[in-house]
Amino acid sequence: MTNDADSFNLLLGTDVPTRDYKAGETIFREGDSGTEFYVVQQGRVRILSGNRVLETLGGNEIFGEMALIDSGPRSATVVAETDVTVAPITEKQYLFLVRHTPYFALKVMRVLANRLRHQNKAV
Amino acid sequence: MTNDADSFNLLLGTDVPTRDYKAGETIFREGDSGTEFYVVQQGRVRILSGNRVLETLGGNEIFGEMALIDSGPRSATVVAETDVTVAPITEKQYLFLVRHTPYFALKVMRVLANRLRHQNKAV
Repeated sequence: MTNDADSFNLLLGTDVPTRDYKAGETIFREGDSGTEFYVVQQGRVRILSGNRVLETLGGNEIFGEMALIDSGPRSATVVAETDVTVAPITEKQYLFLVRHTPYFALKVMRVLANRLRHQNKAV
Repeated sequence: MTNDADSFNLLLGTDVPTRDYKAGETIFREGDSGTEFYVVQQGRVRILSGNRVLETLGGNEIFGEMALIDSGPRSATVVAETDVTVAPITEKQYLFLVRHTPYFALKVMRVLANRLRHQNKAV
């Protein structure tokens, strides 16, 4: 886990709009088009390819970041494991965030690189 | 090739310090430690793994960007193919650049993602 100084949520600040999902709800499906990525604020999500769980993510983790790279379809499905609160980040918001907290850019890039290097599916 | 509006060199601006290498000179070697990446301003460089040429890069392309992700040793050797001028970018300068031109962050991330996805060695 990252320490507090590194927290995506601290970098995000308190003003960002969030979205709530109930346990079991689908956030997006493999094949959906998508232009935003998500920071998990509370609860846990499951990243699925078909029925296989690729990863489980909790607070202060991100998913869907491939949307920043290309606008291809989602390569996995994400389902709320518990009730969750996520902050959706569009490209426009991302650019705003990195202008104000440039370290955000490095953090997202590190997550992306680690996912791609570990050959998890980057969603 | 990228178009002018997308140019790393335009995003960099004109004030950034550069470094010159003669054709045949080594910019860094596989195994070196490194904390900066490079934007090619003029000329061409070869990315080598042992004697194998992985890639040849020219103006407005970047290499060494894995230094932003981790501070592990360089995973390939880079040699000047022609006389070249490169702009070395440290993490500190990168953070300065993304603050002033946030799109720079996305550009670097896209290059990184494409290299990793195409399983070229990201150096």
